[in-house]
Amino acid sequence: MERKEVEETVIAENGKIEATPQKDGSICGFDSLHHLLQASLSPQLFQEVSRILLGLNCGKKVEPIALPQPVKSLSSEHDFDLQAFSFSADRESLRGPRIVRVGLIQNSISLPTTAPFLDQRRAIFKKLTPIIDAAGSSGVNVLCLQEAWTMPFAFCTREKKWCEFAEPIDGESTQFLQEFARKYNMVIVSSILERDVYHGETLWNTALIIGNHGNIIGKHRKNHIPRVGDFNESTYYMEGNTGHPVFDTAYGKIAVNICYGRHHPLNWLAFGLNGAEIVFNPSATVGELSEPMWPIEARNAAIANSYFVGSINRVGTEVFPNPFTSGDGKPQHADFGHFYGSSHFSAPDSSCTPSLSRHKDGLLISDMDLNLCRQLKEKWGFRMTARYEVYADLLARYVKHDFEPQVISDPLLYKNA
Amino acid sequence: MERKEVEETVIAENGKIEATPQKDGSICGFDSLHHLLQASLSPQLFQEVSRILLGLNCGKKVEPIALPQPVKSLSSEHDFDLQAFSFSADRESLRGPRIVRVGLIQNSISLPTTAPFLDQRRAIFKKLTPIIDAAGSSGVNVLCLQEAWTMPFAFCTREKKWCEFAEPIDGESTQFLQEFARKYNMVIVSSILERDVYHGETLWNTALIIGNHGNIIGKHRKNHIPRVGDFNESTYYMEGNTGHPVFDTAYGKIAVNICYGRHHPLNWLAFGLNGAEIVFNPSATVGELSEPMWPIEARNAAIANSYFVGSINRVGTEVFPNPFTSGDGKPQHADFGHFYGSSHFSAPDSSCTPSLSRHKDGLLISDMDLNLCRQLKEKWGFRMTARYEVYADLLARYVKHDFEPQVISDPLLYKNA
Repeated sequence: MERKEVEETVIAENGKIEATPQKDGSICGFDSLHHLLQASLSPQLFQEVSRILLGLNCGKKVEPIALPQPVKSLSSEHDFDLQAFSFSADRESLRGPRIVRVGLIQNSISLPTTAPFLDQRRAIFKKLTPIIDAAGSSGVNVLCLQEAWTMPFAFCTREKKWCEFAEPIDGESTQFLQEFARKYNMVIVSSILERDVYHGETLWNTALIIGNHGNIIGKHRKNHIPRVGDFNESTYYMEGNTGHPVFDTAYGKIAVNICYGRHHPLNWLAFGLNGAEIVFNPSATVGELSEPMWPIEARNAAIANSYFVGSINRVGTEVFPNPFTSGDGKPQHADFGHFYGSSHFSAPDSSCTPSLSRHKDGLLISDMDLNLCRQLKEKWGFRMTARYEVYADLLARYVKHDFEPQVISDPLLYKNA
Repeated sequence: MERKEVEETVIAENGKIEATPQKDGSICGFDSLHHLLQASLSPQLFQEVSRILLGLNCGKKVEPIALPQPVKSLSSEHDFDLQAFSFSADRESLRGPRIVRVGLIQNSISLPTTAPFLDQRRAIFKKLTPIIDAAGSSGVNVLCLQEAWTMPFAFCTREKKWCEFAEPIDGESTQFLQEFARKYNMVIVSSILERDVYHGETLWNTALIIGNHGNIIGKHRKNHIPRVGDFNESTYYMEGNTGHPVFDTAYGKIAVNICYGRHHPLNWLAFGLNGAEIVFNPSATVGELSEPMWPIEARNAAIANSYFVGSINRVGTEVFPNPFTSGDGKPQHADFGHFYGSSHFSAPDSSCTPSLSRHKDGLLISDMDLNLCRQLKEKWGFRMTARYEVYADLLARYVKHDFEPQVISDPLLYKNA
């Protein structure tokens, strides 16, 4: 586990940790909440606080994993955060463990957004190469990159020139990843801006699943498109038309809930009903808008649906050539705000890993026994007690124009008012 | 805001807070996570940590409210935790604020479970009287008590004698609360073990809504019944048959998601679709089972459904006359574990209040402008982007026996295995 971030924090004479000023002007000087609390509390109390914040009840543990020295060297040489943990699960009598090593990568862009687009994309490829190598060399079985990883998250600008970054699902970025998939026998989830050349060159926000032999298993298109803050994505692509597919890979059944879809419990539910054991949430989101929600929604999804969740957010601040307004009455500005990283895993037993840095590129690895999913279904019984027929009926009525909500009014309310 | 709990915590010479041993043998010495961190971090860093943990982004605040001195005196005289906060909301141009003062009460039982049942119930009435008076004297408009507040949470025993505590919805406990409702012009939500005398004396886990004139507006029966740990509630009552009613009261549209229903996102959703602005979650749950989930699920529901949530959990350890086993291979024992209190409010903008004590009776009050619900619907657009028709279709298919999950298999998976 990387501890450098803790050492960078200033500890005042009274033993309290002080905030350090950031380049982006925020008052926030800590790299992750977990590291901050670890440096601030006694070991015994830190353990108790972790029990609640990381969900480590009943003797459950999220243990650090030792990674090979060459991987650690890649991390220090290329200056990316590297953390690895294992979730615990019970041993079963009638089936062996199904332990999968899963990786998440978060990163900032590499070149300024003013550089030629081809250079920008290839610079990201170059930057990601040692991080993907670190994942492969660590024996990662399934790796997921962040949303629209091949480009700056330019949808705040409303300029259409950024559509040039869109690629067909077998484009250059896919070919780049297919090599790693083959080299490391690794499934890779790649979330890109897709150009559907078979349907009028329409654009989609798409995750594609590259199998561990480099083959393209399939794709999923983002179901829910935001209209909030500077997330003008509805200007660029429409609601996905691929349902809620679960991909049966060499290392388990996986699905992808892209970015804003994490705010929709029904979207999470649907991947669960289709049998997902790991759901990735590749995202791009900024601190001012969503940071307090970030640790809530993914963990709730993992608990409610008895599967693992891998959450990824990009890092850094992306500055665009032309300033834009944000519909908030404030002056024009040229950046989208700070993408706060903080990628992490959540488990169905309500535990989660510490998060990657809020500021640095990073690779987060977790070992997870997929048997834990069924163990939690059996312990808590959420599927059996869900009464889906009640909700099938409610939603069927709700989507009709003549839906009448079930409201019981106080008869004295209008009489005495 | 009560600070006594912080002062009871031991601060060692190195400035770090140490755990203090508890009567129940746990290593946990802090009364609430919020107070612990407040005492441990510099003000600047505490503010930043609070921003994430309490969801106070974008200048949002959860401000302490000053309560009348007689109310504070009730709190110290009767030794219950007393905290009060206000959530912020924007002023609108075309409608005035709709500020409601809402209260939550958490409490332990009063007499040993071996006392005569009538004495036990009346002792709880007596214990609650000053706390309800404190709520009424603070101008609380809507008050909610904890789940099955009239009795020990005896379902761990599987003994049927505890069914004697069941009452018709106009029984003694309702009459007790109706007086307070009239006296203080206050809506009260009362969650009891209901005996349905018109349907064969069947039992239900029921919340009833007492209007501010003391009238019974209606009732809701718990939709989802747990089968986990010692929550043998399915031995005592069945899944509710009252749908997802929203009660239109003098102070807004409220609903009740009873206890285990909080693990079901669809249950939360249904109250939202029917128009709830505040959903209460009266609960009884123990630390070993659910504490890490407690801050996650309510806040997720508030965010996803754009309404306020009031979460209540009882406090203390209840010891029963006859020891029982727990289906976990461990020796018989006579208690259900520690009910960890920690009642709190969550808002649709992802903010939440600090929690009440993990150990003491308490009253938590919050002022909330119900306009915030629609403001968040408009900001985030979750209702508009929800694509309910997709999920109506999925659930309609899912509940059929011939449902086939949407799975895309790697064609190389079985070829190369």
